[in-house]
Amino acid sequence: MGLDDLIYQNTEWLKGTGPQSNIVISSRIRLARNVEKLPFSHWADEQKEKEILVLVQPAIQSSNYLKNMLFLKLSDLSRLDKQFLLERHLISREHAEGKNSKAVVISEKEIISIMINEEDHLRVQVLQSGFNFTEAWRLISKIDEEIQATLNFAFSSRWGYLTACPTNVGTGMRASVMLHLPALVMTKQISRVLQALDKLSVAARGLYGEGTEALGNFFQFSNQITLGHTEEDLIDNVERVVKQIVTHETEARRVLMNQNKKRVSDRIWRSYGTLKNAHIISSSETINLLSMVRLGVDMGIIKNIDRAKINKLFIFSQPAHLQKMENKILTPMQRDIKRADLLRKELGGKDV
Amino acid sequence: MGLDDLIYQNTEWLKGTGPQSNIVISSRIRLARNVEKLPFSHWADEQKEKEILVLVQPAIQSSNYLKNMLFLKLSDLSRLDKQFLLERHLISREHAEGKNSKAVVISEKEIISIMINEEDHLRVQVLQSGFNFTEAWRLISKIDEEIQATLNFAFSSRWGYLTACPTNVGTGMRASVMLHLPALVMTKQISRVLQALDKLSVAARGLYGEGTEALGNFFQFSNQITLGHTEEDLIDNVERVVKQIVTHETEARRVLMNQNKKRVSDRIWRSYGTLKNAHIISSSETINLLSMVRLGVDMGIIKNIDRAKINKLFIFSQPAHLQKMENKILTPMQRDIKRADLLRKELGGKDV
Repeated sequence: MGLDDLIYQNTEWLKGTGPQSNIVISSRIRLARNVEKLPFSHWADEQKEKEILVLVQPAIQSSNYLKNMLFLKLSDLSRLDKQFLLERHLISREHAEGKNSKAVVISEKEIISIMINEEDHLRVQVLQSGFNFTEAWRLISKIDEEIQATLNFAFSSRWGYLTACPTNVGTGMRASVMLHLPALVMTKQISRVLQALDKLSVAARGLYGEGTEALGNFFQFSNQITLGHTEEDLIDNVERVVKQIVTHETEARRVLMNQNKKRVSDRIWRSYGTLKNAHIISSSETINLLSMVRLGVDMGIIKNIDRAKINKLFIFSQPAHLQKMENKILTPMQRDIKRADLLRKELGGKDV
Repeated sequence: MGLDDLIYQNTEWLKGTGPQSNIVISSRIRLARNVEKLPFSHWADEQKEKEILVLVQPAIQSSNYLKNMLFLKLSDLSRLDKQFLLERHLISREHAEGKNSKAVVISEKEIISIMINEEDHLRVQVLQSGFNFTEAWRLISKIDEEIQATLNFAFSSRWGYLTACPTNVGTGMRASVMLHLPALVMTKQISRVLQALDKLSVAARGLYGEGTEALGNFFQFSNQITLGHTEEDLIDNVERVVKQIVTHETEARRVLMNQNKKRVSDRIWRSYGTLKNAHIISSSETINLLSMVRLGVDMGIIKNIDRAKINKLFIFSQPAHLQKMENKILTPMQRDIKRADLLRKELGGKDV
């Protein structure tokens, strides 16, 4: 399997079938781990970073869960390929932009991925469709155990796992979900929800993590602290808060349906009509319109499209995905045209 | 035939088939005539206005061209019916709002209509599809001749026909065309075109005549003077100027197709997508979007819709038409919903 095989593969978290997938897109757990007695990646020179990579690669490859993995050195990849992995949520922006011996390991269906020499030596992540921390935690624990059979991680009996940034010390774990909250945004309740989170030790972020915008009414929620609690307790807390947010969103959708069905249907169908007929369309307009169409599907207003198709369009309409499909670099204008072509084709617009 | 039969009748000027009907919607000639020795309608009291009506009705009915005409006294009509006739371009706003013995005569297919006791005793108009003054003039001359066989019109050998407003004295004739000029608007050439008209003795107006807005890129052009020239010369002049405007619009469309085809197609198809999918839509948004769809049809970008359908939607999406079809008074919000229902149905949107 090479990087290009990823494009059309059956990505697990895009299936749109997990628990509460009408609101919860995906659940993700990641662990930050560092090999003992070696400097953190940011402090490592070229030689040291290479050493880290050489050390961790066989440990990862020995895991039963990563048998048919794809191992990619970022220095071998083009800008476009790295952008593609970023759009797929397999690497971070910092990782993509870094130098030296950085790599990423990707399992079948993209359930498991491991960034090597990002902020920490290893950033192991497991992604699941829908609201499913249970499976994500079960799987990531096993992988962590297997890797630790070969590697000794930097660990303090007092603090727990040691990480490059103090905000990850302890469990080194971040459990997050991606939620689609259009009704809370439309009914202007979202800021109240976000404000309440701070007291609950849950952090909110945009579509592509820290510091990114909440395009398309997507929000990521994760544990704010990593220290002083067990992983299970931290996950439980995120789960509990997310359940409440899901309840609020469900209620907001119910209210919209009861009090504003015509207006909401209008906005949903207009979004659909634009996506199905545009000949030039930007990435951000697409995400925002797809958000409305997804709401339409989830509320039973649009019946002939399934979530997997919408999820696919969210990902495939992004710049690097369009260029990978065309197998060439496109100007922004060419991308806006190709994006519109893709949307018309996929949404069954007959007229070209 | 009653007023309600007009709704679905085969209106001649909506056929969209006349000469140059890709740009010229319709050609219209109207004659202002007053019976001699009677005061102009504005100066006539209730009794006098009635007298005028009683006098002109048999004269009109004696015309061979008006045999199966519909004769409607405005005082017998509801507000809605009058609004309906206004939307159909069969009466003017002033006529609809006036009191006393006002009436309108409408021929089959709405080719000929006569307002009685509008500004003048008679306002005879002939409407043709496309660019066709020849037929309009041939027909209106015959009708004028026939009516004059029975009635004596106020006429001065020096000035010609006498009319209530001095701007109509002489021929009493207004020859006008309704043009669709989206490309001149999109390429920002329209104001230059409109400015040049003054010197050419041609007046420009909006969709519903004097003082109305140029909604949907529709413009009416007509002769500015009625005096000192023969009817044929006045018509020739309007025809000559309109031919030039049509040439400019044609050229502007060609340039758009060559230089901006993608952008224009995008705008056209988005308009189509919105019309086909909206669930709430205002009258003015509809007119502006239909204008783009009509441009798409006329430029060969949209192939599965014909002009007659677009023309029909322009008229039937208006407030009084919607209410006549429903046979009841609707609130603005109810109309916006019914309008969207009509557009989705007529444009073949499957999803409701």
